[in-house]
Amino acid sequence: MAGNSFGQLFRLTTYGESHGLSIGGIIDGCPAGVAIDLDAVQHELNRRKPGQSAIVTQRKEPDTVEIQSGVFEGKTTGTPIGFVIKNTNQKSKDYSHIKDSYRPSHADFVYDKKYGFRDYRGGGRSSARETASRVVAGAFAKQFLGDVKINAFVSQVGEMQLNKPYQDLDFSNIESNPVRCPDAEMAKKMEAYIKTIKKEGDTVGGVITCVAQNVPIGLGEPVFDKLHADLGKAMLSINAVKGFEYGSGFAGVRMKGSEHNDAFNSDGTTKTNRSGGVQGGISNGMDIYFNVAFKPVATVLQGYETIDKAGQTIKTQGKGRHDPCVVPRAVPIVEAMTALVLADHTLLSRTNKI
Amino acid sequence: MAGNSFGQLFRLTTYGESHGLSIGGIIDGCPAGVAIDLDAVQHELNRRKPGQSAIVTQRKEPDTVEIQSGVFEGKTTGTPIGFVIKNTNQKSKDYSHIKDSYRPSHADFVYDKKYGFRDYRGGGRSSARETASRVVAGAFAKQFLGDVKINAFVSQVGEMQLNKPYQDLDFSNIESNPVRCPDAEMAKKMEAYIKTIKKEGDTVGGVITCVAQNVPIGLGEPVFDKLHADLGKAMLSINAVKGFEYGSGFAGVRMKGSEHNDAFNSDGTTKTNRSGGVQGGISNGMDIYFNVAFKPVATVLQGYETIDKAGQTIKTQGKGRHDPCVVPRAVPIVEAMTALVLADHTLLSRTNKI
Amino acid sequence: MAGNSFGQLFRLTTYGESHGLSIGGIIDGCPAGVAIDLDAVQHELNRRKPGQSAIVTQRKEPDTVEIQSGVFEGKTTGTPIGFVIKNTNQKSKDYSHIKDSYRPSHADFVYDKKYGFRDYRGGGRSSARETASRVVAGAFAKQFLGDVKINAFVSQVGEMQLNKPYQDLDFSNIESNPVRCPDAEMAKKMEAYIKTIKKEGDTVGGVITCVAQNVPIGLGEPVFDKLHADLGKAMLSINAVKGFEYGSGFAGVRMKGSEHNDAFNSDGTTKTNRSGGVQGGISNGMDIYFNVAFKPVATVLQGYETIDKAGQTIKTQGKGRHDPCVVPRAVPIVEAMTALVLADHTLLSRTNKI
Amino acid sequence: MAGNSFGQLFRLTTYGESHGLSIGGIIDGCPAGVAIDLDAVQHELNRRKPGQSAIVTQRKEPDTVEIQSGVFEGKTTGTPIGFVIKNTNQKSKDYSHIKDSYRPSHADFVYDKKYGFRDYRGGGRSSARETASRVVAGAFAKQFLGDVKINAFVSQVGEMQLNKPYQDLDFSNIESNPVRCPDAEMAKKMEAYIKTIKKEGDTVGGVITCVAQNVPIGLGEPVFDKLHADLGKAMLSINAVKGFEYGSGFAGVRMKGSEHNDAFNSDGTTKTNRSGGVQGGISNGMDIYFNVAFKPVATVLQGYETIDKAGQTIKTQGKGRHDPCVVPRAVPIVEAMTALVLADHTLLSRTNKI
Repeated sequence: MAGNSFGQLFRLTTYGESHGLSIGGIIDGCPAGVAIDLDAVQHELNRRKPGQSAIVTQRKEPDTVEIQSGVFEGKTTGTPIGFVIKNTNQKSKDYSHIKDSYRPSHADFVYDKKYGFRDYRGGGRSSARETASRVVAGAFAKQFLGDVKINAFVSQVGEMQLNKPYQDLDFSNIESNPVRCPDAEMAKKMEAYIKTIKKEGDTVGGVITCVAQNVPIGLGEPVFDKLHADLGKAMLSINAVKGFEYGSGFAGVRMKGSEHNDAFNSDGTTKTNRSGGVQGGISNGMDIYFNVAFKPVATVLQGYETIDKAGQTIKTQGKGRHDPCVVPRAVPIVEAMTALVLADHTLLSRTNKI
Repeated sequence: MAGNSFGQLFRLTTYGESHGLSIGGIIDGCPAGVAIDLDAVQHELNRRKPGQSAIVTQRKEPDTVEIQSGVFEGKTTGTPIGFVIKNTNQKSKDYSHIKDSYRPSHADFVYDKKYGFRDYRGGGRSSARETASRVVAGAFAKQFLGDVKINAFVSQVGEMQLNKPYQDLDFSNIESNPVRCPDAEMAKKMEAYIKTIKKEGDTVGGVITCVAQNVPIGLGEPVFDKLHADLGKAMLSINAVKGFEYGSGFAGVRMKGSEHNDAFNSDGTTKTNRSGGVQGGISNGMDIYFNVAFKPVATVLQGYETIDKAGQTIKTQGKGRHDPCVVPRAVPIVEAMTALVLADHTLLSRTNKI
Repeated sequence: MAGNSFGQLFRLTTYGESHGLSIGGIIDGCPAGVAIDLDAVQHELNRRKPGQSAIVTQRKEPDTVEIQSGVFEGKTTGTPIGFVIKNTNQKSKDYSHIKDSYRPSHADFVYDKKYGFRDYRGGGRSSARETASRVVAGAFAKQFLGDVKINAFVSQVGEMQLNKPYQDLDFSNIESNPVRCPDAEMAKKMEAYIKTIKKEGDTVGGVITCVAQNVPIGLGEPVFDKLHADLGKAMLSINAVKGFEYGSGFAGVRMKGSEHNDAFNSDGTTKTNRSGGVQGGISNGMDIYFNVAFKPVATVLQGYETIDKAGQTIKTQGKGRHDPCVVPRAVPIVEAMTALVLADHTLLSRTNKI
Repeated sequence: MAGNSFGQLFRLTTYGESHGLSIGGIIDGCPAGVAIDLDAVQHELNRRKPGQSAIVTQRKEPDTVEIQSGVFEGKTTGTPIGFVIKNTNQKSKDYSHIKDSYRPSHADFVYDKKYGFRDYRGGGRSSARETASRVVAGAFAKQFLGDVKINAFVSQVGEMQLNKPYQDLDFSNIESNPVRCPDAEMAKKMEAYIKTIKKEGDTVGGVITCVAQNVPIGLGEPVFDKLHADLGKAMLSINAVKGFEYGSGFAGVRMKGSEHNDAFNSDGTTKTNRSGGVQGGISNGMDIYFNVAFKPVATVLQGYETIDKAGQTIKTQGKGRHDPCVVPRAVPIVEAMTALVLADHTLLSRTNKI
């Protein structure tokens, strides 16, 4: 398997299956001299952790990050930052329903075809547990980025869509409810809906909106590595993501150029921001905002038919503790991936001019 | 500027501004022994060429590709394929309206901020002319891919949306009309609408849908370099693209897991294909399909206010010959980028197993 | 710090300072299905370990590798292989002689200038302890490579040079003596010499010769990534290495083309092998052999003058337990880096032809 | 073929066979704002050109570089610099002695095995003509590097070795003689010797020494991408190179640590420079110097036996106009590759600290 590294200069490489000794990673390229608050790193990881509320999986995993290297006397040294998160919840379970059969819309089938066999315990490498390492690295990236503010929140669960512009929302409310929706009223509705879905043994999809503010002008490489293209890839690399749009997005298709264009103020800011903070692939100093679509979690706790390795139809049932809706816990992951992209392009942008 | 290369093993690097001597590129990593039909390469380039119909820009550029290396006796040799497309339409024009001012929703402003100055002639490197090199490389990738069939088409222009599943369309009709919409009736409406928009000196956005068929099982690296993540980045790197969704996409958010999951047939194919041909980042042998949203072209032939380098407000007007709607000419670009991603992952997949 | 990854497809990334919690790394891109003998991995690490004999440093470090992921039921799964080697010998020592001063010909001075400060304990990231991770990864690469045989040995210590062609040596004798020289007589002389040097509190340099056999024809990319160029970089990246030559090397300079050329046998093998198994950057199936020059270890246990951070001259003395000659312990490191290069190019070579 | 790119941030990608339409390349990542003297670029190319003197090949190739992009109003724009060097000397020759047979110590045999077939005309991609593109890119790198001075010269031809430290040489004499040896007396001997060798239809090897001065402290990434490791790879990637050593090199092996260590002056410079300007992989501000060993050119104009594709022994003879000794023309190539490495690490070093 290739593709376990992300970023060109600020670069994360991860390892780990859900049932090995640990998961973890290495951050290479973080500049020396960044003051690191390790509690803030653990705090980000806690935001992603299972068992935080009634609407997420009830698994208990302490998810404690142990920094192995690269931080000395409270600052990054410039050397690679190795980190380990031990797997402590790997009880010897009954995996017979997974081992020899393929769950619909999971990676089981394609892993077997691609690699010849697979570590079937808990989904192995395809488990979303892998994203914990992204959150750790994102926490370092955030601290490197300093004044850049990144806020992600849940803007849709199933049919329930928050139809307010982000400017009308108070981001300080995001963490006030288990859904991570900054609108209190909508948050309650979403929470109630997720509980209903959970009772049905079913799951539902959602949308996360992310806003990055105070991003300096000039991040992004204008042809293949456009800033929004790297953001898009970052988001699409998160488990269960099906779509990405930034600025005016899919709705912008319906507009005319004369409506869509963002007129300039005399200071170079723009009166509107349909561009979503990126023009020609380069940040223009306006807010960067985008939406990320997540499909409903594939593991449903209902009976279903599927096939085994021999192609025989079998009846089976989802087991264990799973998220009825992935978006609340995915909020810190979206933020982390955003931070990684911005950190990487911040370093790249130091090489633009003589 | 970094970021002028795309792909890890099947790798395109491009150069060129709209008003230099030429644009072109180098394809590195194309395996030896691919039989190359050079006419087919030129044909792809012709599909992207300006001046093909009344609804695209009337600029005349012959866009003839000259292969410099890497093809011998009708086959790729395994060495890098250098190619050049001469710029022949670079008349000495009046660029005063661009040189010292910033067009709204163009890259002018951010280029100046990022690089300190810019080649303002015809948009320089930010011109969509750059995508011609992608089409050339994509044509080689298509010939390498052999049986894989890639068909892109226009599925939306402004409000006009083709609401048929792609399975009900006849892809052989795509090239039968200037819009490149395979539904004859919708194509006529779209064409008429674009003509209206053009008369107004305005522009409009659109959506391109792309379908890749006969893709083998096993392409895609399951963590950061998921197949759909690389497709997403590829599409988002095309000028004017604002969004990407695959399979069920943003609509899938509204579904429940029990509805969304793709049940298996006994041969490993699936009864539905909401996954869009990719599970866990790896192709599963079903059709890969996705939508790409394009904003309306920023250059409108109407008067507007903007700022000059000093931040002074000026009145100006779009000039020249521009596309009222970019999607018809973007169809071969979407196909080319798809082919590049699939070619790259085809090579990568050769290293999965011992 | 960038540059903590090695290899393009078979790719090692490492982390760790000599006095953090652990050192370790991630191997990405190892194909699935390689049968792994974990004892063999530990065995390679033991070969590099301090304290093996009277002529190497007497530090005691257990250097036990713990595989975190990527191996399941005795085989690689294709997912990244994370591994950790705990630092267990990090007593709270007196580092005052290092903390504020710069040891001659060490990295102390340049680290401070490059990064602003440094983790001075035990040399931090510049400690050769880092190479333990290379040995672990090399052990996996060796098992992937199967029939390829890689043998490195000490061919020179100070003035004592083994002047026999490698074909006259019995590689099975390499591990029979602490110097790792396959010639028993020369090994004794070298051992005695190193002991003398050690008593003087001094150090001495050496040369390691490495021979790779059964390498298939066709490894190496013929322009910048020539096989011998990647081998050279691999060797020069090992601490204390000052030179690399392959095949006829520096001595070949003195020959005429008519003498130097390797005439073909009818089966494509060559009668001589001055090319060193590589022609035009590509392996030709003959033995690959090369020499690697190591300088004398910079840490001498004698008094010397140097400067502190303020530029003041100070008198100080090397302390602790150091190798009087680095080459015996560097033999497994040279082999490991050779294995990594060959594994990487083995994967790359799968993409040469259609 | 992969491996046609060099450098991570200041990155050259090349294409071209000796008998295609052209050779050329793309420089990506050159920062914006570098004032470019195009005559200086052509001048470097002229230094490498065939036919300059009686001791090099008498082929006539104008080797005129045509910059396609990336330079505007005398400065780099930050966009990729495309360049083309037309092949004008590709007469229809008799290649029957090459087409179906394998010249000893050439790449013919391994290309056929690796790729299945090859462009045999003039050596195809394995021709040293490829290095012209490196010289062009190196000329841009030199102009970016500003005050850094890079001087390479011939220090050995066959047995004739210049045994003076480089500090005793006047680099302004390098271009005063066709051998490019700054010592007039030795230059004459070398020239005479090469003429003798040429008359015999034979060839001879040589050594180029390169000195880089005014390199700032802090270039080089300390683990795998050590500055000297990247220099070593750069040199070993040049056709015919068999060895690389820097600083004390292979001779340093014979020294004791107490002799070899470079004592500091109070300003951080060192009293000696056995380190060769690099400590722990990072430049320390002292002169960087190294030696590069070139084997004798494989094409000898004498009769010899070899094999054809079928493995049959045939008698043949070298034809055409070839260099009797490659080192005089390789001097600008060594300088160019040095400049590329230093330019790349200069950009990388901008990301070390917060």
